[in-house]
Amino acid sequence: MGESPITDISEALATKGKVITCRAAVAWSPGTPLTIENVEVECPQKMEVRVKILYTSICHTDLTSWLGENEAQRAYPRIFGHEASGVVESVGEGVEDLKEGDHVIPVFNGECGSCAYCQSDKTNQCEKYRVNPMKSTMFGDGKTRISIKGQPVYHFLNTSTFVEYTVLDAGCLVKIDPSAALDKMSLLSCGVTTGVGAVWNDANVKEGETVAVFGLGAIGLAAIQGAKIRGASRIIGIDINQDKIDLGREMGMTDFVNPKELDKPVHEVINGMVKGGVDYSFECVGNLDVLRQAFLSTRDGWGVTVMIGIHTSPRFLPFHPMELFSGRKMVGSVFGGVKCKTHIPSIVKKCVNGTLKLDAFITHELPFDEINKAFKLLEEGKSLRCLLHF
Amino acid sequence: MGESPITDISEALATKGKVITCRAAVAWSPGTPLTIENVEVECPQKMEVRVKILYTSICHTDLTSWLGENEAQRAYPRIFGHEASGVVESVGEGVEDLKEGDHVIPVFNGECGSCAYCQSDKTNQCEKYRVNPMKSTMFGDGKTRISIKGQPVYHFLNTSTFVEYTVLDAGCLVKIDPSAALDKMSLLSCGVTTGVGAVWNDANVKEGETVAVFGLGAIGLAAIQGAKIRGASRIIGIDINQDKIDLGREMGMTDFVNPKELDKPVHEVINGMVKGGVDYSFECVGNLDVLRQAFLSTRDGWGVTVMIGIHTSPRFLPFHPMELFSGRKMVGSVFGGVKCKTHIPSIVKKCVNGTLKLDAFITHELPFDEINKAFKLLEEGKSLRCLLHF
Repeated sequence: MGESPITDISEALATKGKVITCRAAVAWSPGTPLTIENVEVECPQKMEVRVKILYTSICHTDLTSWLGENEAQRAYPRIFGHEASGVVESVGEGVEDLKEGDHVIPVFNGECGSCAYCQSDKTNQCEKYRVNPMKSTMFGDGKTRISIKGQPVYHFLNTSTFVEYTVLDAGCLVKIDPSAALDKMSLLSCGVTTGVGAVWNDANVKEGETVAVFGLGAIGLAAIQGAKIRGASRIIGIDINQDKIDLGREMGMTDFVNPKELDKPVHEVINGMVKGGVDYSFECVGNLDVLRQAFLSTRDGWGVTVMIGIHTSPRFLPFHPMELFSGRKMVGSVFGGVKCKTHIPSIVKKCVNGTLKLDAFITHELPFDEINKAFKLLEEGKSLRCLLHF
Repeated sequence: MGESPITDISEALATKGKVITCRAAVAWSPGTPLTIENVEVECPQKMEVRVKILYTSICHTDLTSWLGENEAQRAYPRIFGHEASGVVESVGEGVEDLKEGDHVIPVFNGECGSCAYCQSDKTNQCEKYRVNPMKSTMFGDGKTRISIKGQPVYHFLNTSTFVEYTVLDAGCLVKIDPSAALDKMSLLSCGVTTGVGAVWNDANVKEGETVAVFGLGAIGLAAIQGAKIRGASRIIGIDINQDKIDLGREMGMTDFVNPKELDKPVHEVINGMVKGGVDYSFECVGNLDVLRQAFLSTRDGWGVTVMIGIHTSPRFLPFHPMELFSGRKMVGSVFGGVKCKTHIPSIVKKCVNGTLKLDAFITHELPFDEINKAFKLLEEGKSLRCLLHF
């Protein structure tokens, strides 16, 4: 960790304006191991940026996309990866907020800054660069910037970071304070920002309020830390994996509930722990039955359930409309309500000043070439985040 | 209209402390005509108030409850009615905010003022006196204050107003400005307050925003007027009854859509009228398919659907969880988010100064004895509100 980016700038200058041949972890079909290949990465076009990726980590969305759970998303060959940190190698025409050498993180949910959505304080879903799992090419011309022996290699989630150099729309890159530890910044690309953002923006938890977090992966643990930073008086973590208890407590969890060890529904236990239910619950699993438990765990009148998990089940919401008359609300959270360029710099500041701690999220580190091992660690639930070094 | 309440005060003084025998419209079984009977109305007990009802109107909830659509709500004999206006006849021990002669309206969703819910600005659902369709007796002792030849007559929705004198929990009565026309104040007991409150509180519509209102009964029309008062730039009314168009326009509707005359889904038409969809939609029907249309009619990113209609269908919400990731929200609205004692006085003020106009809601007036005719008018969709005079 702590590689100096100075060398990278001179390196960048040497490649500017040229097609770069570099290593990538390419997915050729659903669920088959990624193969490390040499790919050609084109120059950035208008409003695009080419980035030298220095660190990348793997998020559950990479895992499920790699497994090809959604037929419509199967564009191959493809380069997955959306959590990363790196340095700008060169910028295309019209890019004004980024320059060579800038420390950056890619974000799958971009911010153009000028559309009606970016102008509104009610949403973080940019008209142009919002997350779109079906998109596999660049915004500008609908083509890819990466190829392998002439064959286009598809992009993923506005990012594609399992490659030494990648090309992104400028709206999907956030400049970060160069004094922040660049390796750990990778976590702000998705998981940690999503968790703390859900607490700070979607729920807007206030001092003394109570919280239940369902699912203690990276996002859930980040939500716990976000709630602690806001001064929540009770932070209940729920997970079927008893091993999560220590990490949960380290993040700020005050109570742990393991549904497997209960003889009654989780929400009844939680309503008993916090009379009437918690003010906010966070569903970080992507399971409709868990979502229902999370909903019922909140206090009637004003409880808010923030749905963060991705639901691939074809089932509809397991709620009767009359249940919404209880005053309980349910909202979907995309990237924790964070507008990437507007809000991430303040999150980085919290990392630099030590308010938000990222170390514990990085449970493993491996060289980039061992990416399949990193996938396995996440799939088996052994890692929170495995940081891959290029 | 305009009966002087002065005579009522002296009348009230004559009855204070005594059981009052008076006329009531009693329901004996689901769907059978109400019969006008002499009932005995006891004195108000601790924290209760006896009210002389001068005007009452019929709301759809009276209609559906009378039809007995919900088995669990069938407590007979019973006195329905929850929209009314009248004068305090006498108060029980401990009642401090009301006195004999006060002009009042009963509210099915009361406000004790001191519970955690009343103290919160996030909800209008009082712990004690919130709406409860299953409740058919007084809060204090679980008994009724009305009887017929010794047989208890059950209460309804914290109110029971189809009777000359009724007894309510003090938390379910709101004192109103005596300069307001008492007859029309009946409409603030439920329908009109629910409609304008949903716009002002649950949605909080701002100047220039856009609105779609599904179902142009009294609540929907009140929502239209509420949106107009807030300065909404586009107010689209949706109803399958073409006759609603004139009244809708009188209330402030800018556009009318009749789904029966369309060859595509309503939401597509609305998304065409207001590019991308409206900021807010209001479902005032109680139909899940309409609810889905209302949801899809709002703009992704920040559209809010306020669900006001009562859903008796056993079906769950017809939404996939991923649809909530569009940034669209759906919230349930009970009594328009209005805390009755705190907020209704300011709504009354808007009626007195002419900002909020109630005349057009009263499409029919009848003597109390003709209550069954009034039910029929509502059932056949011929009336918005029929005001019954005692």
